[in-house]
Amino acid sequence: MTTTSSGLPLTLEWRDGDLYLLDQTRLPSEIRIERQDSAAQVWQSIQQLKVRGAPAIGVAAAYGLCVAMQPHRALPLTAFRDELRRQARYLESARPTAVNLAWALHRLLQPAACAQSADTATLHASLIAEAQRIHAEDTAICDGIATHGVTLIQPGMGVLTHCNAGALATTGLGTATAPLYLAHRRGTSFRVYADETRPLLQGARLTSWELQRAGIDVTLITDNMAASVMAQGLVDIVIVGTDRVTANGDVVNKIGTLGVAILAKHFGVPFYVACPSSTIDTATPTGAQVHIEQRAADEVTSFGASRTAPPGMAAHNPAFDVTPHALVSGLITEHGIVHAPFDTSLARLASATQRLS
Amino acid sequence: MTTTSSGLPLTLEWRDGDLYLLDQTRLPSEIRIERQDSAAQVWQSIQQLKVRGAPAIGVAAAYGLCVAMQPHRALPLTAFRDELRRQARYLESARPTAVNLAWALHRLLQPAACAQSADTATLHASLIAEAQRIHAEDTAICDGIATHGVTLIQPGMGVLTHCNAGALATTGLGTATAPLYLAHRRGTSFRVYADETRPLLQGARLTSWELQRAGIDVTLITDNMAASVMAQGLVDIVIVGTDRVTANGDVVNKIGTLGVAILAKHFGVPFYVACPSSTIDTATPTGAQVHIEQRAADEVTSFGASRTAPPGMAAHNPAFDVTPHALVSGLITEHGIVHAPFDTSLARLASATQRLS
Repeated sequence: MTTTSSGLPLTLEWRDGDLYLLDQTRLPSEIRIERQDSAAQVWQSIQQLKVRGAPAIGVAAAYGLCVAMQPHRALPLTAFRDELRRQARYLESARPTAVNLAWALHRLLQPAACAQSADTATLHASLIAEAQRIHAEDTAICDGIATHGVTLIQPGMGVLTHCNAGALATTGLGTATAPLYLAHRRGTSFRVYADETRPLLQGARLTSWELQRAGIDVTLITDNMAASVMAQGLVDIVIVGTDRVTANGDVVNKIGTLGVAILAKHFGVPFYVACPSSTIDTATPTGAQVHIEQRAADEVTSFGASRTAPPGMAAHNPAFDVTPHALVSGLITEHGIVHAPFDTSLARLASATQRLS
Repeated sequence: MTTTSSGLPLTLEWRDGDLYLLDQTRLPSEIRIERQDSAAQVWQSIQQLKVRGAPAIGVAAAYGLCVAMQPHRALPLTAFRDELRRQARYLESARPTAVNLAWALHRLLQPAACAQSADTATLHASLIAEAQRIHAEDTAICDGIATHGVTLIQPGMGVLTHCNAGALATTGLGTATAPLYLAHRRGTSFRVYADETRPLLQGARLTSWELQRAGIDVTLITDNMAASVMAQGLVDIVIVGTDRVTANGDVVNKIGTLGVAILAKHFGVPFYVACPSSTIDTATPTGAQVHIEQRAADEVTSFGASRTAPPGMAAHNPAFDVTPHALVSGLITEHGIVHAPFDTSLARLASATQRLS
């Protein structure tokens, strides 16, 4: 089940009433699929980044809530609803910064909130159906991002990306990678520079792995080589993903994104952010209001099992940084590419999306 | 022999006619001192970064040339001179970018070139004496950099540094760290942010190790966190070292320095480069003329012994980048802090230095 017919990795699967996740912490050295048997296991899988990337987290959490409610199908309606909210809050706490996590879980709360007399086994089935809709939508959204973003990829270009906003971060073509996969299928030749993305090396372990498997020309660099590669004129466009875009267009994404955006501005390289419109959080005015998850110091003072710094060394480990909207050339969404001024363009996109849904 | 009375690590030592080096590739987990018994061993120690940092490489190469000539002390003068030049060329090839390496070796060629009738055992003794002068000068130069640079360190400051231009990179207080050690001795309180400096992690393994041992408040960050730390207003000054400064003030230093300089400019943070005046190469007009050493791809596709990228992954691995002089606030030398316009200020410094020597 690890590969779709298109050669893309299969991030997750709902099969015969069970959720299966590809454990991305073991890539690229091992391909291990894990069945998720409890809410606690799903919570850990999200928290430990076995499944990661905002869109994939959303889909995994939606199915995860179905897994969590499996033992509670016989509860009376009110107790079922209470348990559903409790489990949703629990799963939401696994990654506080990821807006798609909360978004997907809240979508699953709605059928239960509206149900007047349904038996809870039917309600559970409707949760699964809603999770499957979220899943299908995610795959379609990747296709939409691909269609709009592919117009930015010209033959011979150098494309720099950071972290993994790839197929592994979604259940389709990825976000930042979607235009690349589509351009590659259309025979456009280009080269990708993948930042390794310390501390967890998603670029080295995941992006380079999935692009290499797809036959795309990819060169791995350490994060601190991005400036040098840009100074040599090798980068024509930066495309990254995002965990959350605020109402003013500020971009919350993997630590290091801000640095890449500043370098891109310095060298006159366009800086694009690929995102499902669900990642746009118009309820949060600016990036300053977003809580930035701090992770354990030993991710910085170690690499995997090997310690790199002396014992007792203090370390910073913010999982994300905030790229101010002024550094963003455009947001590639499934509905089109959105440009500055983002406060108005994102509000327009939000109201258009609401009309569509 | 690993620690001086001041608590600084002892990078190298010449004792009883033998050269001893601290193997920095094993820090911080192991402290191992290796006696250098041949030119080939010295070449490997420099090439494998067991001894690293432009000033320390210069001193190690000078003593290394003495080691290399040990078996040739009985040669006739002309043959001795030929062998000396041959061994110097050989040692110089270990790190082509490091200007101090060539500079130190050429200083040792001069006594031999001028000697008319000296017996070669005496000539060998004069090589050792010259290497010891280079060593003593290096220690004194660090003190000079400290004296001038300490004026930049104000109480409560955040200082960001990249790679290791520390005591371990010299035979004294270091270059970038010299103002920090002196400020600390004077009781000034400040915090250092140390970039871990992929791929070889000199910041994590070496800078954080030596600053921590000296009791300085140091926080380790991954290279891609520098922008985030600056955005939070935590960095008031950047001080880095350099392997070579060209006539126009361009700075060749460890990969990642250019990125830090661009970030510093973006956030209005002063960017200083600490360097012995011997690192200033007025014979090379700009950074564009400097050959940048490319190192093995597996330093990027692996992390120590653990592979991070899939097999067959292409990777870039330039050891250095070039920071244009326009991004440099000043050069902290043993003779004072030099400011733009660098073409004239560096030429003035060079002629003053020649008059002094």
